[in-house]
Amino acid sequence: MKARTQAAVSAEAQIEDLLGTETRFREERRAYQPGLCSALTAGRTTTRPLDGYELDAIKVAREQLPFVSQNRLVEIIPGGQASHQPRRLGIVLSGGPAPGGHNVIGGVFEAMTKGHPESRLIGFLAGPKGIITNQHVEVTAEMVDLHKNSGGFHMLGTGRDKIDTPKKMEQCRQTCATLQLDGLVVVGGDDSNTNAAFLAENLREMGTQVIGIPKTIDGDLQVPGLLQVPFGYHSACMAFATEIGNLNSDCKSDLKYWHFNRLMGRSASHIALEVAFQTHPNVILIGEEIEENELTIHQVVRLIADVVVERAQLGKNYGTILIPEGILEFIHEIHVLIIKISYIIADYDREAHEGESFQQLSYEDQVQLIDNSDIWRDYDSRVFLGFPSLLQRGLMLPRDSHGNFPFALVNTERILLEMVATYLRKQRAKGIYKGIFRTQNHYYGYDGRGTFPTCFDCDYAYNLGQTAYSLLANGATGYMAAIKDLHRPVAEWQPLGIPLAPLMHLEERKSRLELVIAKQKVDLESPAFRFLARERDRWALEDHYRFPGPIQFSGPAADAKPISLQLNALG
Amino acid sequence: MKARTQAAVSAEAQIEDLLGTETRFREERRAYQPGLCSALTAGRTTTRPLDGYELDAIKVAREQLPFVSQNRLVEIIPGGQASHQPRRLGIVLSGGPAPGGHNVIGGVFEAMTKGHPESRLIGFLAGPKGIITNQHVEVTAEMVDLHKNSGGFHMLGTGRDKIDTPKKMEQCRQTCATLQLDGLVVVGGDDSNTNAAFLAENLREMGTQVIGIPKTIDGDLQVPGLLQVPFGYHSACMAFATEIGNLNSDCKSDLKYWHFNRLMGRSASHIALEVAFQTHPNVILIGEEIEENELTIHQVVRLIADVVVERAQLGKNYGTILIPEGILEFIHEIHVLIIKISYIIADYDREAHEGESFQQLSYEDQVQLIDNSDIWRDYDSRVFLGFPSLLQRGLMLPRDSHGNFPFALVNTERILLEMVATYLRKQRAKGIYKGIFRTQNHYYGYDGRGTFPTCFDCDYAYNLGQTAYSLLANGATGYMAAIKDLHRPVAEWQPLGIPLAPLMHLEERKSRLELVIAKQKVDLESPAFRFLARERDRWALEDHYRFPGPIQFSGPAADAKPISLQLNALG
Repeated sequence: MKARTQAAVSAEAQIEDLLGTETRFREERRAYQPGLCSALTAGRTTTRPLDGYELDAIKVAREQLPFVSQNRLVEIIPGGQASHQPRRLGIVLSGGPAPGGHNVIGGVFEAMTKGHPESRLIGFLAGPKGIITNQHVEVTAEMVDLHKNSGGFHMLGTGRDKIDTPKKMEQCRQTCATLQLDGLVVVGGDDSNTNAAFLAENLREMGTQVIGIPKTIDGDLQVPGLLQVPFGYHSACMAFATEIGNLNSDCKSDLKYWHFNRLMGRSASHIALEVAFQTHPNVILIGEEIEENELTIHQVVRLIADVVVERAQLGKNYGTILIPEGILEFIHEIHVLIIKISYIIADYDREAHEGESFQQLSYEDQVQLIDNSDIWRDYDSRVFLGFPSLLQRGLMLPRDSHGNFPFALVNTERILLEMVATYLRKQRAKGIYKGIFRTQNHYYGYDGRGTFPTCFDCDYAYNLGQTAYSLLANGATGYMAAIKDLHRPVAEWQPLGIPLAPLMHLEERKSRLELVIAKQKVDLESPAFRFLARERDRWALEDHYRFPGPIQFSGPAADAKPISLQLNALG
Repeated sequence: MKARTQAAVSAEAQIEDLLGTETRFREERRAYQPGLCSALTAGRTTTRPLDGYELDAIKVAREQLPFVSQNRLVEIIPGGQASHQPRRLGIVLSGGPAPGGHNVIGGVFEAMTKGHPESRLIGFLAGPKGIITNQHVEVTAEMVDLHKNSGGFHMLGTGRDKIDTPKKMEQCRQTCATLQLDGLVVVGGDDSNTNAAFLAENLREMGTQVIGIPKTIDGDLQVPGLLQVPFGYHSACMAFATEIGNLNSDCKSDLKYWHFNRLMGRSASHIALEVAFQTHPNVILIGEEIEENELTIHQVVRLIADVVVERAQLGKNYGTILIPEGILEFIHEIHVLIIKISYIIADYDREAHEGESFQQLSYEDQVQLIDNSDIWRDYDSRVFLGFPSLLQRGLMLPRDSHGNFPFALVNTERILLEMVATYLRKQRAKGIYKGIFRTQNHYYGYDGRGTFPTCFDCDYAYNLGQTAYSLLANGATGYMAAIKDLHRPVAEWQPLGIPLAPLMHLEERKSRLELVIAKQKVDLESPAFRFLARERDRWALEDHYRFPGPIQFSGPAADAKPISLQLNALG
C-alpha cells in the first residue's frame, strides 16, 4: 500500500517535471562556466596604448565628437592601479536579439561585484527607450544565474529606438543623473554603438562613462585586425548551418528537390559565407562579388541555372542554394530602379491629396505612373518589364519611415526560383536541359537569432562584459570593448578598447548625411573568400556536402569556432 | 627554418581540415554504440505468442492475404534454437527520409553477421523501384560504419513507388529469385508496410520472408499498447522544437512578432502535439479536436484571434502559434468543398477537348464553372466566397494523379494569418482590440526530416533492425518489427513481431477501396491530449515558454524521449 502511494507520488512528480519549463538541458547550460582570458583573470587591470593600427577619425567625427575622438586604441593588461570603489552601472540591450547577450550582462556583473561587492547594475528595459523613459530593473545575482548561457534578450527585452534628437539625449542625461550612474554599457550593432559614441560625448561632464559592445548576428560589425566578428554571429550561423546541413541530408536521400534558402543578415553576405563553409551547398551567392562583377539579375539566374543543368546531366536533380537576404542591393540595375521608384513614390506622395498615396493605387496605375515619370528611361522600362511580376511588385513595396527600401520583405528566394524555372523551360525547349526541377523554398532568420549561444559565443560575450567593466574601471569612455585573437585559445584572447570615433563615416539616413558606425561588407581579398572561390566549383557538382549537425555543448564538437574566422587567421 | 616549415605544413593540414567534410562531430557520432535490449543481447532468440491484445484482420484482409493473415502477435525472448545459417537478405528504404534509417541497416547487418559471418545484405537503391528494377549494392561493414548514427537515407536513397500491380509484383519476385534472397526488410510508413504485407504473401512460396519496419516522422503509424511511435518521429519533433523554442526566445526578447508556424506531418497532428509539449506555444491547433468539435474555419480563426486580443490586453503583442499542415482536412466545411471541387474538376477535365483542362481556365472562369455546377449549393457559395482569395485559390489547386488534394501545397499558416488579421481589424474598429499585430510565418518540414537522429532514435532504430533479423531467423514473415515499452530503459525494451494483416483497413485510393495499413490520428482520450487540454490556457496568456535547445548527444540532455510518449505511459 505504501509502495503504491510512493509510486503515485513519483508519477505526479514525473508529470510535473514533464510539463514544467525547467529542463536538464537548461540546468546543464547554467552550470557551464565561461572561460576568461589571462589578462582579465586577476581582476585588477590597466590599459595601455596599442600601436600599429591606423584608426583616424574623419573631420566630421572630430567636430561632432571633440572629446571622444581623442581616444586612442588601448589594450588591457593585468596589474595596475585600477580603482575599485563601488560603482553604479547601467546596461542596455539594443537592436535584434543575439545569442550571448545575457553573458555580457553576466560578465559585467561578475567583474563589477568582484571589484566591489556593493556595486550595482541597472538594466534598462526594452532597449534605448528604457534609458529615455527611465524604465529599469536592478540586475541581481539570481537574474544573472537564471539567464546564464541562455539565448535571446529575455532578461531586459530590447528595442530599436535611436537617441538622435537633443530632446532624447537630454532625457538620457536626466535618467543617468537620477540613477547616479557612473557608467553605461550599450550592447548593440552599428546604430547602437553610434548611440554609445554620442552618449559618451554628452554624458562626459556629468561623469557617466559609456562603453559599447559589438553585437550582431549579421557579422557586419568588424574592425580589420582588431575585431574579427561581433558576438552572436557564430551561434546564428551554426543554427542556420544545422538547418541547411539537414536539407543537404534530405535532398541527398530523397533525390528530388532543389532547396532555395534565403538567409537573414541584412546587406552583407557574412552569414551566407560562414554557412557555406559549414555546409558546402551546391550554389552560394555572395552579394559583394555580384557587385564587384557588375552582374545583372539575369546573370545571377544563369549562375544558378547552369549548376542545375550540369547536375541534371550527372543525373542529380537535387541540391541546396544559399541566397543572402541583401543580395538585390548589390545588383546594379535593381539598385538603380529602387532609387528611381523611391523617388517617384516620394514625389507622388508629397503632391497627393489628403488620404491618398502611391500604395493605394492599383498595380496597373502604379506601373503607369512610374512609366510616365521624367526620370524613367526606355532602358529602365525594358529592364523592369523583363522582371517577373513578383519582383516588379517587390520593387514597389512601401518604403519605411526613413524612405529606405525593405529588402527583408522581398521573397528573393522565390523570385530567383521563378526566374530559374523560366530559364530552364527555355533550355528544355532547346534540348539542353532534360532534368526535373522540383523545388522548395525556405527563409531562415528569426529561429537562428533566438538560439542558445555556442560555447564560443558564451565565452566571447562573457569576456566582452568583463572587458567593458575593465575599461570603465580604468576611466575609459567612448570605446567599444573588443577581443583580439579569437582564433586562439580563450586564455590567450587579448581584450581591447577600440575608440568609436574612427569607426564612423557619413551615411545617408532620412535623406541626409549622418555620422554613424560603418558596416563592413565581405572582403573579396580575404583568405576566407579566396578559399570559397577555390572550393565552390567542387561543391557545385560533387555532393561534397558537410553536415554540421545541431550545436553541441559538450563533447569534442562543443569548442567549434567560425570556419571563416579561422581561415582568415591562417590564410 | 625547420620549425617554419612545420608551421606551414601544420597550417596546410588545418586548412584541409577546415575545408573537408569530416567533422569531429561526425566522428563522435560514429563512435556512439547504440544500446541493445536484454532480449536481443544474447544473439540467439526465439519467438512466443503474446496474448492480451486484440488483433483481428478484417474479412478482405483474410481473403487477400490468406497466409499472412494467420500470423499471431509474438514477442522475442532469449534462447531457443534459432538457426544461424548464412543468410542472404535484402533491405529497402522507402518513402520520405527519417532520422535513424541507417541504424536499422546497421542493426540488421550486425545481428546477421553475428548470426553467421558469411551472411550477405543487399541494399536496394532509390526505394521500392530498386527491387522492381533490381538496382542494388551489397552493404559492407565499411558502409555501415560510415553512416552509423547519421541522419537521412543517403546510403541507399529512397523513393515512393508502390508495388501495386501484378506486373510489379512479378518483377520483385524475379529480383528476389535472381538474388536468392531468403529475407527482405522493408523500412517505411503505412504504404511501405502495406507493400511488405503483399510481398510477404507473394514471396512466401519461393522462400523469401518479409519484415516491415515502422518508420515515419509523422508519427501516424502506431498500434495501441504495442507500438507507441515509429522511429524518426522523436528526432524530427526535436528539430522542429529547437526552431520553435528559438522563436519563443526571439519573440520574448524582441516583443513585437506573432510567429505563425506550419509543421510537417501529413493529416494527423502528432508532430504538433509533441512540439507543443517541448515548447509551450501560445496557441496550438489539433486537427482531430477541430474535427471532433465540428469547428468552422472562422471558429478556428477565433481560437487564435481571441488569444491575440487577450495577450494585447496584457501588453503582450507577440507569441508563437503551431499549425499542423493537415489542419484543413479536419474542418468539415472545407472538406466538403474540396470533395465537391475535386468532382467538378474531374468532371470538366473528362469532358474537355484535347489540350484543355480546368487548370488552364482563368481564375474567374474557374469560379464561374464551380458556381454553375449542379452539386454546388447556395450555402457552398456563401462559404466559399467568405474565404480569402488565398484559400479560394488553394482549394482549386491541381489534384495529384490519384485525384487527391495536395494539402501540403496550401500555405495554411498564411491563410490563417490573413484571416486573423481581418478579424482583428474588425475588433479594432469596435474598440475591442488595441494591440499591434506584426507577424512572421514559417514552414518547418524538410529541415527536420534530415536531422541527425536523437540517441533515442539511434537506439530505437538499431533495436528494430536487430528485431527484424531475429524475426527472420525465427522463420517469421508478414510481420512488422516493433519494440514495446519504449518509455523504459533500453535494457527493458521488449522486441515484438506485430502481424501486418490486422493493421489493415479499406481506404479510398485512386477512387477505389484498397486494403492498406491504417494511419492513426491523435487520440483525444489519450493522457497526452488531456494534459495538453489542461495546460494550454496557461501557455496562452502567461509566457510559459519552454526552450528545448538544439538536440544534444552527450551530457544529461542526451537521453531525452518524446514527452507525449512518457505522459501516455504515466497517465
